[in-house]
Formats: sequence, C-alpha cells, structure tokens
Amino acid sequence: MTDKNVDVLAIGNAIVDVIADSGDAFLERHGMTKGSMRLIDSAEAERLYADMGPGRELSGGSAANTVAGLAALGLSTGFIGQLGDDDLGKIFTHDISSLGVDFATAPRSDAGPTARCLILVTPDAQRTMSTFLGAAQQLDRSTIDEERIARARILYLEGYLWDPEEPRAAMQAAIEIARATGTRIAFTLSDSFVVERHRDDFLLLLDEKKIDILFANEMEILHLAQETGLEAAFDRIGAMVTTLVVTRSEHGAIGRSGGERARVKAEPIERLVDTTGAGDLFAAGFLAGEALGKPLEDSLRLGAIAASEVIQHYGARPELDLAALAGPLLR
Amino acid sequence: MTDKNVDVLAIGNAIVDVIADSGDAFLERHGMTKGSMRLIDSAEAERLYADMGPGRELSGGSAANTVAGLAALGLSTGFIGQLGDDDLGKIFTHDISSLGVDFATAPRSDAGPTARCLILVTPDAQRTMSTFLGAAQQLDRSTIDEERIARARILYLEGYLWDPEEPRAAMQAAIEIARATGTRIAFTLSDSFVVERHRDDFLLLLDEKKIDILFANEMEILHLAQETGLEAAFDRIGAMVTTLVVTRSEHGAIGRSGGERARVKAEPIERLVDTTGAGDLFAAGFLAGEALGKPLEDSLRLGAIAASEVIQHYGARPELDLAALAGPLLR
Repeated sequence: MTDKNVDVLAIGNAIVDVIADSGDAFLERHGMTKGSMRLIDSAEAERLYADMGPGRELSGGSAANTVAGLAALGLSTGFIGQLGDDDLGKIFTHDISSLGVDFATAPRSDAGPTARCLILVTPDAQRTMSTFLGAAQQLDRSTIDEERIARARILYLEGYLWDPEEPRAAMQAAIEIARATGTRIAFTLSDSFVVERHRDDFLLLLDEKKIDILFANEMEILHLAQETGLEAAFDRIGAMVTTLVVTRSEHGAIGRSGGERARVKAEPIERLVDTTGAGDLFAAGFLAGEALGKPLEDSLRLGAIAASEVIQHYGARPELDLAALAGPLLR
Repeated sequence: MTDKNVDVLAIGNAIVDVIADSGDAFLERHGMTKGSMRLIDSAEAERLYADMGPGRELSGGSAANTVAGLAALGLSTGFIGQLGDDDLGKIFTHDISSLGVDFATAPRSDAGPTARCLILVTPDAQRTMSTFLGAAQQLDRSTIDEERIARARILYLEGYLWDPEEPRAAMQAAIEIARATGTRIAFTLSDSFVVERHRDDFLLLLDEKKIDILFANEMEILHLAQETGLEAAFDRIGAMVTTLVVTRSEHGAIGRSGGERARVKAEPIERLVDTTGAGDLFAAGFLAGEALGKPLEDSLRLGAIAASEVIQHYGARPELDLAALAGPLLR
C-alpha cells in the first residue's frame, strides 16, 4: 500500500465568496430561504449582484474552507477543484496555496468563469448563499489523481458537489480509489436542500459502506433520515456509518463512533459576526483530531474551537492561529 | 453658472485592495517602509502577491474611499477613475455604484489590468501599501467631463494620482474647469513620499490659489513645508490656502479656515484593526461638513467620526451606517 503522507485530501467546489450585508427584506424580495444555499445561473448571478450592496471577496468553497482550516491547524492537506482562467481563479489559487495546501488542479479557459458564491449576511449573522458554479461544475474525472488519493489518510468530499454531473462522477471514481487504497472517506451533506435532491444516492453510499465519517447539521440529518426527532435520526443514520458527527450551531455538536458517543458544547464567543464557514471549520477541527488519532470527544472539541473562530469575523476561512487556539488538544 | 447639484466629485485611482495580515519581518524582507505607499510594476506585484498570505479583496482607492464615505453620509457624489476590462474592474464598478456614487468612466480593454493595491496589515494595525497602477494610470483628459465638474460643489483630487503623467494632466485640466465654474477644489497630499516627488508642483498649485481645501497628515505637511515642527509647518502652509486640515492619527486633527482655528480629539474606539482608509474617511467626514456649510469644528468632528469607524475593521470603506453615527452633526 502507498505510504500515507497527506492527512486530508479534499475534493470540492473552487469558489470565491462575495460577501455583502443585507436586510431580511432583501432575502424575501429575492425569494431566498435564510440560511440555505441555492444554485443560480449566470444571468441570475448578474441580476442579484447588481442589486446587492458592496462586497468583500474572499476565497471560499465548503471543502476548500475545511482544508484551509486543517492547514491552519498544521496538518498536511491537498485540494482538487476546477477554476476558470480569470482574476477570481488567480485569487483562489493564491489564497489556498499561500496556506500550504497542495492545490494542483490547472485552471481551464474552456470551462467558463470561476465559480462565485453571493453571500448575504443578515443582522442575525446568518448567511444565505446563491452559488453560480461556473467552472467548478466542469471538474471531471481527469482531475482525480489515483496516487494523490492513495497517499491521503482521509479523502473529504462535499455534498454540494453532488449536484453537477461531471464532479459527481469524479467523486464516485475517487471513492472507489480510496476504497481500494485504504484511504478513509469523509463526506459532508452540505445543505438540507442538497439532501432532498440526492437522498437516495447518499443513503446508497452509506448502505454500501462507502462513507466512513459523515458530517451533517441538524436539518440535514433530519432530512436524510426523514425523521422529525434528532435522536431517532441520529440513531438511524449512526447505525449506517462508522463515525457520525451532527453539528447543532449554538448547542454544540454530538458524535458517535463505533459504539462510543460524545457531545460538546459550543465554545464561548465574544461577538457573532457571520456564520459562513461554521460547519466547514467544525469539519476541519474534527478531521484534524481524526487524522491525529484523538479520542472522539477531543475531535469534537477541536471542531467547536475552529468553528468559534470563523463566526467572529466575515469570511469562511480562519484569521487567527487555529493551532494556538487548539493548544494542547493538538499535541 | 451651472446649477450645483452634486456635493463632491472626486478624481482618483480606481483600485481594488488586496488585504493580508503580515509580520514586521515580511516588510523588512521586502524593503518596505511601514505605513507608506510605494508604486510597483506588474512583475513586482506578482512576486509580492505570491509571497503574501491569503487576501481579502475589497474596493479601495483613496479618493474613491472618500466618496464612498460621503455617500454613506447621505451626500450626492460622483467619481472619475480608469479601470481595465476585467473581474476586478467589475468588482470596483459594482461596489461604488451600489453605494449610489455616480461612476460613469467606461472600463478600457486597451489600458491593462485594473489597478490593485497589496496592503499588508501588521499586528499594530498599520498598513503598508504596494500599488500596481495598471489601468488607473491611463486615466486621460477624455474622462474629464466639463459639465460634471461644473455641477459639483467640491472637486476632490488625490495626490497619489499626481505620479502618472496622463492622470496628472487630466487633473490639471479639471482644476482649470473647476476654477472657471465656481467649483471649490479640495486636494489630499496622500503620502509623504508623494510630497517628496512633487513638492514643487504642490507648492505651485497653492501659490496660484488652485487649491481651496488641503488635507495632509503630520508627516506630509512637514515634508511639504520642509519644517521639523508641526506648528511652523501648519502656519506656513495654512497661510497659502483657504482651508487646511492636518490629521494626527490618535491625536485627532487640527484645522484652519480663514482666520479661524479648531482642533478635535480622535473618537474613542473599541478595537483598532486596520488603519487603511483612516485619512480617506476623515476627508469624507470633513468634506460632508464643508458641503453642508457646517462650522470648522463640526466638520473636523465629522471627519473624526468617519475615520473611527473604518479603522475598527479590515478594508477602507465604511461598514456601519455613517449617517447614523454622525447623528445631529449632519442635520
């Protein structure tokens, strides 16, 4: 078996976030569900952007945020995602590379513009996202390098990328390679609407034991299990996967791994600014613990610490030294 | 005389800021003077960007930040600046237009890429800037619309734009139009190195009474007057211009208008994050007071309030409702 010398390799949407403040009325006028993500085409992206206030552009993308967090925690990471050959693509490449993430997917000039996610942050710090996938949905099988997957301890996949056809096929191929090379597979459900669109696929992946670590928030696990109670959903899905983590915003998180269960509270924060990236960074902290062989409760705590940092500023990537915040938990 | 129905029209560099955290050692390694701005070419911009940490992209440009602040204070504003035909140009256009600023300079595909300013923020919240001017330095005489200048109460010009030849000629033309149409001319010295490069020009402008309102910080006024004491510099330059404003960071600001003098303290702040835009927003507050015919001290106070907001977050444009912060001072 290939030597495992990378902690986490992620496959995800390579996206630049455009973050603007917004009132609730703006969301209503544009028919958005607060806290959710919807896909939009380029015409809608232009309409919405023209109507939005001034933006802050920061690199984003769910799984990309997670590897950024893992890198900030000192782990070795890689990322696979498709960019267009434009300014936003250069921004994404710079930001992720400067964190030390091994990102080697070449931008493509024939794939359309780099994906952007228009994120409206309401005064309650919730984020509502409209994503124009652009080049990201052109991610194809050719970007999946068998050797890179074989060298990773954990392969991390985002549910958002299950929407477009080519990336879905690419992720399915990556799963098979991971299975054959002893790489553990972690998967995030991403969004309850994503779960609604792909419930059968996701349940089949679990049935076939193609996921080792599953991340969900409360809404997502309820939608996946088609239950109305968290306990029932947690038990039903938990029985299908080695490790299940359910994040519960200000109520912390619960986890289950083999027969063991644990729960952690949310970390105290000074001020809530923008919840974008909370789930992504929770996954980063948890996966760091997993990759380092920490007990379940410590991994959950690492997740809570990483999530608490990212919600205290705009943008979905850490600004403070996460390794210092995590302290002895990482050693 | 044309009806004056715009409060402030500004001519400046149309720039997107790329803001990254940095240590002092990084500045030293790259031979930068902390707190200053230097011009770099595209090769140096690429080298420096490659070496920087992850960035936040936000629209910037000194005079553009000032009109953004004026718009946030409820004043009617316009902006003239040259962009390239690229993603960063679209970001700049969106951001300034969404604030209600009348920005009508067409991007040019033959002018090179949109200007960017690489801003390194050290832990003391100071910003050190390296600017690649790109398309901004192609701003030419054809962008100067006589009718627009005639309609403005105040024409605001940034010293930074005195460096490249074509924009300098464009600003000189704008000054003549303003003089002929009863539009007051405000000018900011921008940076002490800019003053060193163009001292004779700036003193000539003052001698010829082509500037009505001059903005400087302490270093800039000392360099312009070639004095070592603030009082002497303030008196010497103050005698050459109707209104002089000298900002003094945490020590507040002093102003002189006709025979009158006034000083204000800096506004108290909760936390200092990034001083980028402090001078630009001070100018916004002060010009709002001037355009509304407020007493000197009130205008200085408006400047201090606007500056205090922008230094408490990353980026050089206001995030909070400046009109609400200013309160009764604006009415």
